[in-house]
Amino acid sequence: MTDMTVLPGAGMDAFFKADGIAIIGASDDSSKIGGRPVYLLQKYGYKGAIYPINPRGGEIQGLTAYKSVLDLPKAPDLALIVVPAEAAVAALKECAEKGVKAAAVLSAGFTEAGPEGAALQDQMVEIARAGNIRMLGPNCLGSFSVAEAVIGSFSIVLEDNMPLAGNVSIISQSGNIGSYVVQNVSRRGLGVARFMATGNEADVDVADGIAAYADDAETGLILTIMETCRNGERLTYALEKARKAGKPVVVLKIGSTESGQKAAASHTGALAGSDAVIDAVLRRYGALRVHSVEEMLDVGHAASMLLPNRLPKGKRVTVVAASGGFGIMMADASTQAGLTLPDLSENTKRRIQEAVPIAGTNNPVDASAQMSSRPDILTKMLSALMEEENTDAVELFLSLSLYNKRLRGVYMEGLREVRKAYPDRLLVVTSAGPADAVAEINAMGIPVFPSIDAAAKGLAGLARLGELQTLAEPTRFDGKVEKLDASAFRNEYASKKALAASGVSILPEQIVTSADEAARYAAEFGFPVVLKIVSEDIQHKTEAGGVVLNLTNEADVRAAYERILVNARAYKADARIDGVLVTPMAKGGTELIMGISRDSVFGPVVMVGMGGIYAEVLKDTAIQQAPVTEEEALQMIRGLKMFPVMDGARGQARADVKAAAATLAALSRFACRHADDVAEIDMNPVLVRPEGEGVVALDALIIPVGQASVSH
Amino acid sequence: MTDMTVLPGAGMDAFFKADGIAIIGASDDSSKIGGRPVYLLQKYGYKGAIYPINPRGGEIQGLTAYKSVLDLPKAPDLALIVVPAEAAVAALKECAEKGVKAAAVLSAGFTEAGPEGAALQDQMVEIARAGNIRMLGPNCLGSFSVAEAVIGSFSIVLEDNMPLAGNVSIISQSGNIGSYVVQNVSRRGLGVARFMATGNEADVDVADGIAAYADDAETGLILTIMETCRNGERLTYALEKARKAGKPVVVLKIGSTESGQKAAASHTGALAGSDAVIDAVLRRYGALRVHSVEEMLDVGHAASMLLPNRLPKGKRVTVVAASGGFGIMMADASTQAGLTLPDLSENTKRRIQEAVPIAGTNNPVDASAQMSSRPDILTKMLSALMEEENTDAVELFLSLSLYNKRLRGVYMEGLREVRKAYPDRLLVVTSAGPADAVAEINAMGIPVFPSIDAAAKGLAGLARLGELQTLAEPTRFDGKVEKLDASAFRNEYASKKALAASGVSILPEQIVTSADEAARYAAEFGFPVVLKIVSEDIQHKTEAGGVVLNLTNEADVRAAYERILVNARAYKADARIDGVLVTPMAKGGTELIMGISRDSVFGPVVMVGMGGIYAEVLKDTAIQQAPVTEEEALQMIRGLKMFPVMDGARGQARADVKAAAATLAALSRFACRHADDVAEIDMNPVLVRPEGEGVVALDALIIPVGQASVSH
Repeated sequence: MTDMTVLPGAGMDAFFKADGIAIIGASDDSSKIGGRPVYLLQKYGYKGAIYPINPRGGEIQGLTAYKSVLDLPKAPDLALIVVPAEAAVAALKECAEKGVKAAAVLSAGFTEAGPEGAALQDQMVEIARAGNIRMLGPNCLGSFSVAEAVIGSFSIVLEDNMPLAGNVSIISQSGNIGSYVVQNVSRRGLGVARFMATGNEADVDVADGIAAYADDAETGLILTIMETCRNGERLTYALEKARKAGKPVVVLKIGSTESGQKAAASHTGALAGSDAVIDAVLRRYGALRVHSVEEMLDVGHAASMLLPNRLPKGKRVTVVAASGGFGIMMADASTQAGLTLPDLSENTKRRIQEAVPIAGTNNPVDASAQMSSRPDILTKMLSALMEEENTDAVELFLSLSLYNKRLRGVYMEGLREVRKAYPDRLLVVTSAGPADAVAEINAMGIPVFPSIDAAAKGLAGLARLGELQTLAEPTRFDGKVEKLDASAFRNEYASKKALAASGVSILPEQIVTSADEAARYAAEFGFPVVLKIVSEDIQHKTEAGGVVLNLTNEADVRAAYERILVNARAYKADARIDGVLVTPMAKGGTELIMGISRDSVFGPVVMVGMGGIYAEVLKDTAIQQAPVTEEEALQMIRGLKMFPVMDGARGQARADVKAAAATLAALSRFACRHADDVAEIDMNPVLVRPEGEGVVALDALIIPVGQASVSH
Repeated sequence: MTDMTVLPGAGMDAFFKADGIAIIGASDDSSKIGGRPVYLLQKYGYKGAIYPINPRGGEIQGLTAYKSVLDLPKAPDLALIVVPAEAAVAALKECAEKGVKAAAVLSAGFTEAGPEGAALQDQMVEIARAGNIRMLGPNCLGSFSVAEAVIGSFSIVLEDNMPLAGNVSIISQSGNIGSYVVQNVSRRGLGVARFMATGNEADVDVADGIAAYADDAETGLILTIMETCRNGERLTYALEKARKAGKPVVVLKIGSTESGQKAAASHTGALAGSDAVIDAVLRRYGALRVHSVEEMLDVGHAASMLLPNRLPKGKRVTVVAASGGFGIMMADASTQAGLTLPDLSENTKRRIQEAVPIAGTNNPVDASAQMSSRPDILTKMLSALMEEENTDAVELFLSLSLYNKRLRGVYMEGLREVRKAYPDRLLVVTSAGPADAVAEINAMGIPVFPSIDAAAKGLAGLARLGELQTLAEPTRFDGKVEKLDASAFRNEYASKKALAASGVSILPEQIVTSADEAARYAAEFGFPVVLKIVSEDIQHKTEAGGVVLNLTNEADVRAAYERILVNARAYKADARIDGVLVTPMAKGGTELIMGISRDSVFGPVVMVGMGGIYAEVLKDTAIQQAPVTEEEALQMIRGLKMFPVMDGARGQARADVKAAAATLAALSRFACRHADDVAEIDMNPVLVRPEGEGVVALDALIIPVGQASVSH
């Protein structure tokens, strides 16, 4: 699916709440792919009707087998198709005829297998659309609901036990990675609501999963694993839906590095959008991107326990250990993860010392072994921290203490008391075990992290999730796409004129075709001026001797005009020359570069970076899907590493960043309005003058679609 | 200990191979600190003599108790002192009298308890020195040897079982963190040789531990946990010893962030050297710094299994999974950790496809589920990779496969075959369990990492360890420290003259005291020139109107001379003025800043950074303990983020970085030669001209000891 014909999330209930399930290609052998769902549905007590379908009929795993879906007494909500690719087409047709609402095509042999498979897949989509069927896959691991035992999958995680039921729902393109996440979520003692693996995504895609979970009462937290995004509009639609529903979305988008992207391209065969663009889009739409399964679990674990309303409001964490060394490690890890360690109030310090006289009351709190001498002492100390205003979370490190029976008893009693007295404060524990003690603390509603690093990353992720929930709704371009006059693509002059009409500031400038004219405009604009060749055949003006700067009088302007023409002819004898551009010489201020490129998935993308060689070496740029508001543009500029240079570092004058943001926003709107025609825009440099004096684009070029390569 | 009176490692055998152990303050209660060592020594079958010492005499835990060490039939190698601080002094005196070789003072109440405790600690050091006793602690967790059950500790990790014996030795200042590491090392299935926690480090310090392990036949890998380094010379001595012995040292130096350092300073009370300096020193002396216990375990685990000679020779890793998605994650994680994924040779690709026809033969290798269909197929595929020249390590990801009986069988058989056929190739497995399967693979000599991230970090750490083993021996300053003529501190002119005499290039320059003289020297040097005020009372010359640039004729020089003097008087009426400096105006080239500061632990430290506001905003600097060779200086310069600017980025001329390195090396030697007098040197800017044209220090100032604050 590559459009919005069917809105993300529509008709997805049939996968998770099916009142009947047909297994087309059912087998009596429970170890076979066609046998496993029949086996699992019975094993885990699915309450609906189970219809094994097999041309031989008879009985399968103790159930009546039907020769065709058409023979069923009633249309089931869901059909699992496990017959080979060619037979799958006919099977899906019968499903449509019968009125089945959803089909999970577990069989392989489609797009991933070559052109013939791709043709079969196209047929499947056509049938699904015509029959109003939502189709999952093909070549996928299917889906399941835990509490209801609605199983349309043969995932290995269902092998021994059903995962614990809970509020975490998982949507993954890769069935393998999805299963791996389910298994690890279960191992952490968390419960799962729904699982879905989308495989080839011929119809149902990751966006469907996110949108469906957003609407699902059982789901509190959405874990998403993506290898590629095929449709930006669907994804952002789904993310907005989840955010409005107050359900955090954590995304593991793999293929973040060049090697990973190369691998992803060869694995999925999909044209991948730029990783940097998807990164920006996820952030903008309030999804938290993580970079490993472990980080996903660290954040997900705590988040799922803290929903709906205990996400931290900020990044301030107070860390507590019975030993100074651990406190130092916690401080290091927390800081590196982006958290801050606030100073505690005097009142809290006093109360800590009332409980533990020898405690160090800085943050990290060195609570000494005394804190675990009696439960009431621990409770008293932790209560002081729970009432501290100046912190968003408290992390207690327990080293090896839980391996000691007496200490374990003290901690359990103390923690239980504190949780009861302060149910809404964020308290987490870091402990490597033993497993039953960890489970016991988790069960109190206190998330337990397995290591100091995991706790730091997990808490930082929670803080970011909290922050993301408060983001303003992203702007969408709601204007009309208009044709851009083709002359705008001709040269610098025409490009700047087109941009200027849309709110980009430029200097007064004029194309002239004689030395006299050049001198006249120079005098009109005021000296010094710059002269530049204007020719669509000369891209590198400086190299061609086509630029002369800092001309201070009419005579010099005249001479420069002639010299430029001579140089241009020498450089390229047959160059079409429109004339020479006269413009005042701008001085002072900071140089930015701004630009537009087109992402294959997310459309026009706006970029800003610091100008000059230093910034170029550092690749100091920020990007975002267009359009951006002035506020968003300002955030992009403020996010540049070199931003302090514009912000008064080393006594420099502050630059007019507000005007720069307005220009960037105008550029982004221009790109959306002319999205069909514009492939690329480069404005380099954009001079940002001191505060209050505005910005000017000193050079600009618009490149039409077809002439530039689409990015990636 | 803060000097080299006793060389690191001297006399340390007594702790690990003691033929007899006295426990001063022994208790019959095995749960008390004085009772635990007696209990543990017997429980784990220590072969030497155990002497409980208690003024009451009688019997303790079934052994004859002596009233004093002096009463013992024979001097034991080791005494554990567990009596209160005040009694400990007398006990140590008796140990000295008796001829005990080493004492571990487990009691607290010394420096960490205040001035009275500090005085007691000083007495202990005096007694130990006089009596030729190595003293561990006080306020420490002691030491133990696993295989020999030489136990001088009450660590919680000895509670239930003795850790597995092996080749990993641990030295930690913090007993708690040390124990935590031992426990985690054991949990990974690795064996421990020695453990030591140094506590207050009144005598024995971390350097002693490293040096002792370097000499110890049982130790293969040294894990070090430091909160602070009190003596740089001892540490570097010990690190060199370990490197010469071919024993990798992995260091978890905690307190790497500002919060962590603040916590460390308040915890240890020690004056901490700069974290950046210790980071540079560790690298230089071949130790691998890690930043968390987990990273230490990831690297340590694999390293301990691969010693002595299977450390990778480079950073090239080939990753293999049965699913494309996992391959992408492995590619991402590996790249982020600093590894590279090389392309495989055509021959290897062909051989992989012979084994697994549908395999994807790029790197990551997508070996599909087929690789696990039969052991011989797996063996064939892995053998192809084992014979691939173009890789330093192969990582096989096993997702959930080991949970499946059939697959587990296939993998075990295949891996065993491959390990046997290619015992020296580096093969690692990533698998989250089950635990017994992981243990089985580890036992084959194939390190198993618990996650994709852990494998990436572990392999990257191994590659860095391999690289560090090949480092050249660091230079030490072996010249004589000389008095520096105090006039060098007076002003820019004198400072530059002093530096120039040591090999730093400067421009011709002259202090003049009349306008005529200024004009004469300007003509001699050649125009354009620069004039600058020279006054020890005017630090900010530009601000004072004391600098005039780009003077192109004698008249302008004369005028500038007068103007500068007027400005200087106006700026500071009573400033002592030495005159005005005349020097040619240097143009073109890249600006560096170079400097010297003094670290409280490691002495003179040399710094280089890119000049200008951009670099300042980015804090783009490199530091190293002085002196550095030209080669080391070159590496520092090449390590700057902005280095590409000097290296021909965007068509710029290459800068003369060799000359810059020579200047930096000369500066560092100068700082060592005058280490007693020089607190700080600033050379800013140092102009680096195009290749072959050298560098010049355009400004320099030397600040004497006592005038500048010692860094940190």
